[in-house]
Amino acid sequence: MAVTLALDVGGTKLAAAVVDAEGRVLGRSRVPTPAGSGPETLYETLLAGAAAAMRGADVIPGDLSGVGVGCGGPMRWPEGSVSPLNLPAWRDFPLRRRLAKEFGVEPVLVHNDAVALAVGEHWKGAGADAANLLGLTVSTGVGGGLVLGGHLYHGTSGNGGHVGHMVVEPDGPACACGGHGCLEAVASGPRTVARALAGGWRPAGAASPDGVALAAAAAGGDPLAAESFARSGRAVGLAVASCANLLDLEVVAVAGGLSQSGPAFWGPLLDAFAAHARMAFAAACRVVPAELAGDAGLLGAAAFVLLPDRYGWDPPHR
Amino acid sequence: MAVTLALDVGGTKLAAAVVDAEGRVLGRSRVPTPAGSGPETLYETLLAGAAAAMRGADVIPGDLSGVGVGCGGPMRWPEGSVSPLNLPAWRDFPLRRRLAKEFGVEPVLVHNDAVALAVGEHWKGAGADAANLLGLTVSTGVGGGLVLGGHLYHGTSGNGGHVGHMVVEPDGPACACGGHGCLEAVASGPRTVARALAGGWRPAGAASPDGVALAAAAAGGDPLAAESFARSGRAVGLAVASCANLLDLEVVAVAGGLSQSGPAFWGPLLDAFAAHARMAFAAACRVVPAELAGDAGLLGAAAFVLLPDRYGWDPPHR
Repeated sequence: MAVTLALDVGGTKLAAAVVDAEGRVLGRSRVPTPAGSGPETLYETLLAGAAAAMRGADVIPGDLSGVGVGCGGPMRWPEGSVSPLNLPAWRDFPLRRRLAKEFGVEPVLVHNDAVALAVGEHWKGAGADAANLLGLTVSTGVGGGLVLGGHLYHGTSGNGGHVGHMVVEPDGPACACGGHGCLEAVASGPRTVARALAGGWRPAGAASPDGVALAAAAAGGDPLAAESFARSGRAVGLAVASCANLLDLEVVAVAGGLSQSGPAFWGPLLDAFAAHARMAFAAACRVVPAELAGDAGLLGAAAFVLLPDRYGWDPPHR
Repeated sequence: MAVTLALDVGGTKLAAAVVDAEGRVLGRSRVPTPAGSGPETLYETLLAGAAAAMRGADVIPGDLSGVGVGCGGPMRWPEGSVSPLNLPAWRDFPLRRRLAKEFGVEPVLVHNDAVALAVGEHWKGAGADAANLLGLTVSTGVGGGLVLGGHLYHGTSGNGGHVGHMVVEPDGPACACGGHGCLEAVASGPRTVARALAGGWRPAGAASPDGVALAAAAAGGDPLAAESFARSGRAVGLAVASCANLLDLEVVAVAGGLSQSGPAFWGPLLDAFAAHARMAFAAACRVVPAELAGDAGLLGAAAFVLLPDRYGWDPPHR
């Protein structure tokens, strides 16, 4: 039985699952990321979650065909030494090597969490069987992954798919990457909320000023909320159109918190896409919500190991 | 002896070459495209050029391992029925099928001329041995081709590489594709000249108002010429930065008339690239002039046939 341990390491939660070759989740766990802990505490928490998922699936390390991991970037790839922006405890933490020693198994494959999500959507979600797919996550940041010609595209240094740093407003706001006008600097969840707050929007009652409250306000007709979502949606639509024109894509799957904000986000997104993807081949690209919700990253991480011809790569030091 | 007939079909010239497996040109011809002729006259002129190149190389059709063609788009791919924007005589002209019958050989492989150019630069030019390359042509239009993971990237319908329709000015000028703000609508040679003319620039003496005259004016310090080149250069630099961020490229090779306009074009291009490609992996991408001048398209077309594992594809109706 080929089962794989899949790990999804994020700033807010650590998720683990045991996944079989058909993409079935046989066991799972999910715990909050321990905030402010040291590197070893964070690692031990991840291991405890893995153990819980394995108990749930009734497997032992010897049953595993490998370990697949989606983790916040940046990282050294394919070495799998990670320095997630949103996990300050880990700086050049040798996650791949530690896990390989821990479980006594290879391959252990670590890639960007947005890449894992795109692979999950390609394997079992909105882009199943598409030859060419962009998976895009609009959340705390804006990330992505590309499956091109039916195979995961890595890029020269494992950084393929950084759609969040396509330039959508040439004179736009400064971005964490050092540039300006990047998609992420315009359309991330925090930027969308901050823009509405700067314009004078306040959440109703005691709600915290976040994307959920902003979406509720937009749905209720608040013009400041609507305009901020519209600018983010337009930016995403424009970037997606540029990608469709450049890459002759079949599917773009949009995931992440903002993608669940309804017409306030999707309307301007699809309008901008239609305005800028005019050649027949580009207009034919399907731009759709991701389908797997929270499981996309786990399924994608498992697929790194389970479907090496499509989604895998050679790890170092085998 | 594996030799291939390579054809480069453009709006101003028809070029042919016999190319061996090492990329040596054994025979060649080049004639002006017969303007205003019918479809068969155009085709006969292309065949006459092919015959001249084959005589020069002392080969007969039976010696050919195939025929590779770069042709202006759009086209149906991989069928190779072409409708070049700049060759109104051909509309859905079955170029691939006609050539296969004419020479009694397969494969006959027809792709976009900008794709052929990118492949030529990857095989023997500025991007030799690069895993991930964008070849970009800034000329009458703005076209491109992508070699990703060491293999020519086709896209879903053969339209991969349409970099000219990435959006660089969201509120920018209308584009022939039906969109607006596309790289081509800002930075093509004709747009660059037209913008300077609209601003009041006039070529010196009896020179015709073209890119060569504009480049001379910019080199001589004419501010209108310089500003128009700068806007085009910035647009190219921004699009290239977006590509480097998205695709984690190793090399971008820039060809075409405008790329020979010197610092007035290259200075703003490289400045914009540096401003927007800030992550270490993207900043490491080399942005360089193409190296093969007029031969890139012919060598690339030959490479479709000569190096099928890297640059080829399965033609229909073999």
